[in-house]
Amino acid sequence: MNLDPVYAKLTEPNDQTLCLLVMDGVGDIAVEATGWKTPLEAARTPNLDALARKSALGRMIPVAPGITPGSGPGHLGLFGYDPLEFEVGRGVIEALGLGMELKPGDVCARANFCTLDEKTGLVTDRRAGRVATEITEQQCALLASRIKKIGDVQVLIQAGKGHRFVVVFRGKGLEGPLTDSDPGKEGAPIAAAKPAGKSAGQKKTAKVVAEFYKQALPLLKGRKPANGFLLRGIAHQPDIPTIEQRYGLNAACIAVYPMYKGLAQLVGMTKIEGPQDIAAQIEAARKAKGRFNYVFIHFKYTDMYGEDGNFPKKVEAVEQLDAALPALLRVGFDVLAVTGDHSTPCPMKGHSWHPQPVLLHSACSGSDGLDRFTEKCANSGSLGIFEAKYLIRLMQAHAKKFAKFGA
Amino acid sequence: MNLDPVYAKLTEPNDQTLCLLVMDGVGDIAVEATGWKTPLEAARTPNLDALARKSALGRMIPVAPGITPGSGPGHLGLFGYDPLEFEVGRGVIEALGLGMELKPGDVCARANFCTLDEKTGLVTDRRAGRVATEITEQQCALLASRIKKIGDVQVLIQAGKGHRFVVVFRGKGLEGPLTDSDPGKEGAPIAAAKPAGKSAGQKKTAKVVAEFYKQALPLLKGRKPANGFLLRGIAHQPDIPTIEQRYGLNAACIAVYPMYKGLAQLVGMTKIEGPQDIAAQIEAARKAKGRFNYVFIHFKYTDMYGEDGNFPKKVEAVEQLDAALPALLRVGFDVLAVTGDHSTPCPMKGHSWHPQPVLLHSACSGSDGLDRFTEKCANSGSLGIFEAKYLIRLMQAHAKKFAKFGA
Repeated sequence: MNLDPVYAKLTEPNDQTLCLLVMDGVGDIAVEATGWKTPLEAARTPNLDALARKSALGRMIPVAPGITPGSGPGHLGLFGYDPLEFEVGRGVIEALGLGMELKPGDVCARANFCTLDEKTGLVTDRRAGRVATEITEQQCALLASRIKKIGDVQVLIQAGKGHRFVVVFRGKGLEGPLTDSDPGKEGAPIAAAKPAGKSAGQKKTAKVVAEFYKQALPLLKGRKPANGFLLRGIAHQPDIPTIEQRYGLNAACIAVYPMYKGLAQLVGMTKIEGPQDIAAQIEAARKAKGRFNYVFIHFKYTDMYGEDGNFPKKVEAVEQLDAALPALLRVGFDVLAVTGDHSTPCPMKGHSWHPQPVLLHSACSGSDGLDRFTEKCANSGSLGIFEAKYLIRLMQAHAKKFAKFGA
Repeated sequence: MNLDPVYAKLTEPNDQTLCLLVMDGVGDIAVEATGWKTPLEAARTPNLDALARKSALGRMIPVAPGITPGSGPGHLGLFGYDPLEFEVGRGVIEALGLGMELKPGDVCARANFCTLDEKTGLVTDRRAGRVATEITEQQCALLASRIKKIGDVQVLIQAGKGHRFVVVFRGKGLEGPLTDSDPGKEGAPIAAAKPAGKSAGQKKTAKVVAEFYKQALPLLKGRKPANGFLLRGIAHQPDIPTIEQRYGLNAACIAVYPMYKGLAQLVGMTKIEGPQDIAAQIEAARKAKGRFNYVFIHFKYTDMYGEDGNFPKKVEAVEQLDAALPALLRVGFDVLAVTGDHSTPCPMKGHSWHPQPVLLHSACSGSDGLDRFTEKCANSGSLGIFEAKYLIRLMQAHAKKFAKFGA
């Protein structure tokens, strides 16, 4: 049952302020190699511990049992959007993350340069040896200068980091998703990006993409190592109601990495640019509090070191966050949630489905009598194990932004 | 929301192997009479304890809060089939358990001989004094030799253990379910088996069953003590997708009792016949591991003694299972789940709705830091309390058989 209309009906604006602090991928698993401890357990976290002692704890299922989310679904869930209802292509997220201003209906593709065998045309390196950002910027500039339109469709090309870039197709009647042109393995040719469904918009988009390849590949011919490119996550920007529309919240995003800024912008948050570390982010949150009543702070490093399988560094990242926490508490948001968008267990070197721990602090959170912000403590918390999409509802409730249901 | 299509889309086959060890009815409740201990708590279980310490724990709701499942729904849930979506009549399960090869649309009835008062026709013993298997076999042979067809409907009769047998009606346009002809109490007449709904198939089946009674009862007249019979769970075999179709798993069932073999066969598992005790079952599992990537092992005795209300015997059954566990661990399945299909609390002498404890062990289960496999420990596990139908999804996830959802 979709409860969004129920919540919408009960929503009552007030002055209370909400803060969502995301320690990306913070959840982990305790295994023998780390003395049966998770990074949260191994870390020295006096500030998180003190906060946990006067908070409600629990764990959250990012999407559904056993399902490992990408960053998109992980964050959409935290923002209260059911990731199964609101699917967003990677191309869209990447484009937003690179600061591109998208228009409704724009079809975006995540692209990367690759190496093709000159004779056979087969992909020999899907990332062109992780070619330098400068080369990518040069080649994107070349493509952008030569291919501005395909028929009535505008083509926008934006370089990212390393071998990555983004292509946006803007025009009437375009629609995704298409299948990837990335064959997913070396030794295969570039695949045709085909309509994932049967709509006219998808068919038109597939033709445009094919024509884009036809014009672009000759321009790259002979270049080493990046003489080809692959497209993934080709989809149009979905029509997502904003945080303002759904919750009556005026939201700001304070993130360092493009992907998370993009995700926040997709749901209508204002991006606050500038801060490059957690201390600066918290300072920006302090300044933002007067203008916004929902502030999303994204901390990347717990996920990054989880992906690397680097337990000591993930522990350090947790401790770094812990050290910054008192400044955030001093800002005095009425409701503070600390959690991850998913788990990134070090032993797995990647995202996982394990429910991430969550801490909710407000004047009415009470205390679960738990000593620490860890996975095990969270197992016994009063929030239980719940779907991540309800977090913002609990935050709204703790901020007293819901009327009573029924008499 | 039915998530099956989402899971299906994410499913990626690999070589990892899954084992589901069902301690039937293992869950229990702690009451004063047993020193506030459950059988799992009272039992000496060094092997389960050691496994629990490096596993994830939780509890499972068999069907829905407060709903007590029969063995059918209990096991269907464990196999990942929502018991509210996939309903299977007891007759179908019994027929499969007796090794009958059913065809789609066959209507099956669980039958048992009963004693009727010669004069009034009222049921005086619903189980005919639990008449011996030999008598049942003789009388079934008699009925089968005299009643082969009713109109265009073929009648198949198969003796079971004690007073039990199965009747299968095979023909065009048959459909269940019908209401039981078993009045459910002594002193009442045999009830008419009526259509549970309004379909033509149900009406036709009800007529066939009435005619079957009309022809069969005279054949039993004067026999003592089994001069009548009662039908229950009259239903047709539902169209259930197999485990292979749903999960891409090649599944084997190693059970001693017919019912569970039947349930497994219903979802397309291969029955491995022969083993008569848990040690032999585990040896069979060892041999099966090369050919199957999902092995279901069924252990009956925890339920049997729960049904008897025999606490010491249920404790013994748990200890017997515990003693066999190391051999199973040596088999080296990548993912092992230990649980029940429901609780069968000794004080209740029957199935119940109390969530059964579940233990999930794999390279990525981590440890919840819990010392034992008990109901109380499971309450604090990282799996939380979840619907049993998600167990196989978690097992698939732990076997890394799901792609990431979204980017």
